[in-house]
Amino acid sequence: MLLIDDEDLQVKEIPIGLVGYGTIGQGVAAILELNGQQIARKLGAKLYLKHVIEKYPDRNFDIPIDKNIVSSELDVLLRDPTVKVAIELVGGTTVAKDIVKKLIMSGKHVVTANKALLAHYGQELFELARKYDKCIAFEASCGGGIPLVESIRRGLLANDIKAIFGILNGTCNYILTSMSKEGKDYATALSEAQAQGFAEADPTFDVKGIDTSHKLAILSSMAFGQAVPIESISAEGIDGIQIQDINYGKELGYVMKLLAIGIKEDDGITARVHPAFVSKDDPLALVSGPFNAVSVYGNAVGHTMFYGRGAGRMPTASAVLSDVIDIILGNALQTFKQVSVLPDMTLPAPIKPIDDITSRYYMRLMVVDKPGVMAEFTNILGKHDISLSAVIQREESQEAQVVPVVVLTHKAREGNMQTAITEIEKLESVAERPVCIRVVDQYPEFT
Amino acid sequence: MLLIDDEDLQVKEIPIGLVGYGTIGQGVAAILELNGQQIARKLGAKLYLKHVIEKYPDRNFDIPIDKNIVSSELDVLLRDPTVKVAIELVGGTTVAKDIVKKLIMSGKHVVTANKALLAHYGQELFELARKYDKCIAFEASCGGGIPLVESIRRGLLANDIKAIFGILNGTCNYILTSMSKEGKDYATALSEAQAQGFAEADPTFDVKGIDTSHKLAILSSMAFGQAVPIESISAEGIDGIQIQDINYGKELGYVMKLLAIGIKEDDGITARVHPAFVSKDDPLALVSGPFNAVSVYGNAVGHTMFYGRGAGRMPTASAVLSDVIDIILGNALQTFKQVSVLPDMTLPAPIKPIDDITSRYYMRLMVVDKPGVMAEFTNILGKHDISLSAVIQREESQEAQVVPVVVLTHKAREGNMQTAITEIEKLESVAERPVCIRVVDQYPEFT
Repeated sequence: MLLIDDEDLQVKEIPIGLVGYGTIGQGVAAILELNGQQIARKLGAKLYLKHVIEKYPDRNFDIPIDKNIVSSELDVLLRDPTVKVAIELVGGTTVAKDIVKKLIMSGKHVVTANKALLAHYGQELFELARKYDKCIAFEASCGGGIPLVESIRRGLLANDIKAIFGILNGTCNYILTSMSKEGKDYATALSEAQAQGFAEADPTFDVKGIDTSHKLAILSSMAFGQAVPIESISAEGIDGIQIQDINYGKELGYVMKLLAIGIKEDDGITARVHPAFVSKDDPLALVSGPFNAVSVYGNAVGHTMFYGRGAGRMPTASAVLSDVIDIILGNALQTFKQVSVLPDMTLPAPIKPIDDITSRYYMRLMVVDKPGVMAEFTNILGKHDISLSAVIQREESQEAQVVPVVVLTHKAREGNMQTAITEIEKLESVAERPVCIRVVDQYPEFT
Repeated sequence: MLLIDDEDLQVKEIPIGLVGYGTIGQGVAAILELNGQQIARKLGAKLYLKHVIEKYPDRNFDIPIDKNIVSSELDVLLRDPTVKVAIELVGGTTVAKDIVKKLIMSGKHVVTANKALLAHYGQELFELARKYDKCIAFEASCGGGIPLVESIRRGLLANDIKAIFGILNGTCNYILTSMSKEGKDYATALSEAQAQGFAEADPTFDVKGIDTSHKLAILSSMAFGQAVPIESISAEGIDGIQIQDINYGKELGYVMKLLAIGIKEDDGITARVHPAFVSKDDPLALVSGPFNAVSVYGNAVGHTMFYGRGAGRMPTASAVLSDVIDIILGNALQTFKQVSVLPDMTLPAPIKPIDDITSRYYMRLMVVDKPGVMAEFTNILGKHDISLSAVIQREESQEAQVVPVVVLTHKAREGNMQTAITEIEKLESVAERPVCIRVVDQYPEFT
């Protein structure tokens, strides 16, 4: 079921529509320029951009484009029935949603990298596409250039997927890596990331964990075959992280990462995004700078991990084009229609409240250095069934009135931990709200 | 182009043929038992084993099977036209080749995990399959359960793939890991691997690098879109590796791995398998025990890595079933026919002789501890354009007549290095042939 019919095959030229000629859109043009011949040799068909729809068609582009194919009018693309595949790279969830709907209704398969759009409106858009016998392909929405979506959806289809652990935001990983490796504080690391192009001028979406949540909603819904709504994902970002906690963690053998975690258990699915300490021996610990990686645990395959650049012009455009090609091969539509793992085809996941998860915890308390303080807060922890596995108290200079105490706990219930922290904060001997970072152990492979 | 026609869809039961009920074959049955319901829900169709062909049908199996579907006669499967997908898990290259041909000629798509068969006879078998409009799917042939073949073939199709670096043999990686982490010598590590089921009674195929070469032939042919014949791959195994070299390497910041390396350069393709030192910061360095991983470098996507269990019953069966499902979806045939990267559809790769590659080298010489020795062998290296970046000479006990000298070189030509080693070996002050391990730096991402 090749999308290109025999007539097309003869001419061997396949027109593509592109909406949004920004960073990634220009990457698509750049790859077609760079690798077009090779792709044509592999596919027996040449892809070319027939229409580029761009709001500001007259601005200067890094990757030059034939002005004759550029227009600010979406209708030019919608009205051309020869174009059967269109790429949406506008971003955001308002205009982009409207564009995707129009593209589908005008009879085009859609490729998008827009995770916010799919996390919020995936169900509605997938339904619409099905109605028109079209597909939406979205490999580029999660993990940039990593062939992640299709590996989970098809490559691991025979598995009952038990858990995914992802580093899914290059900005956060870049910042945490430079804090960890170069000892920079958060503000310095952020502004350097901005200067290097690894963080936006307004980094809120990234550093607050929102972008990561979008990706987790998409991936966990697909992995578990149950709809995990974006609203059910609890998210904490990295903007409150202090360098001293990264350093204490390092001494204890841990590396801090912003993790997207989806776990399927008998009593429900947890989906959460938060800073976490992972062991330095966990393969995720080696994922540095702007790189992304996702560990996926299947009940047959065990632990698999997918690693690569999670953002950037060329890597993301690589994933966009892999979708375009998969649509042309007829595979994408087939998968979209026949593999019932997308949120419009599955039941909502039973969500386990975050208070009910269990975790080990790292906690740093700033305490007044006097006898009996330790007993005060360990009593509170004990009362809530939280036991300690390690305590570090450094000798500070004699003048210090307030000193840090770092503790590691055994597994405890999240709800209990949060209650304990609130109680500990109220102690007179405790100077500020304790810092609490979840310690995420490697998932057991075959259980 | 669903393989299952409408009539099949109604009954929603898809019969599968399986040839060879050994370790992996029983894994296929185990997964269908364990995850069959879930797969059926995702696919809207239930897979079941209709015929299991097994040479010794009366032996005891770990995974019990209905005796009524087991036969020692291949013909039972060949003569059943309702079975459109068959799995070959016999292994070897003689009987298996005959079986695959018969399956294709009787109108069945074939799934195989047999890397030796494909490395030696892929071209012939792929041609035959094309003639009969059938496909051969082989995700399980390389990297066990890792969705590797399809990630390279489809996920990265828009890339000009420049290089692949793989840890592709779980036996070797298990042995090297226990040598490195537990200080065991090769013989001890091997016999422990055998006791644990991670090495065969006759480990030749694994430890000599032959199995890894088969996988490299398959992956590099596909990655580069040029046929890389198994005969063109130079292979060294791990059976000569001494623990002291692993330890010296570790002191210098390196971890030893058996690497499969395929690199595409302007003057040709190199494909080689040998023990190598990789930096402890290279993500491949963290791949421990029976795990496999492959780093793939594309000119658009940059560095990607795929990690997981490279062998074993359930992981390999997971990949086998992903192929079965991809055939049922109609995708596998479409990819097989339309993506021209398999050796029967491409030109032979221009192979660059191994003598012409350049590498950095680790070398250990056992020298007589007297003045002037260093000058002797460094003169020889210099004569062949090999310069040193580091020299380590330990003070040994006064009685030692022969002491180790470890050197690291800058980049040098392989042919020169081999000539130099032969000349150095002849020096009177050198007690034995120097040990030489290539140091493989991380590939530059965007060049």
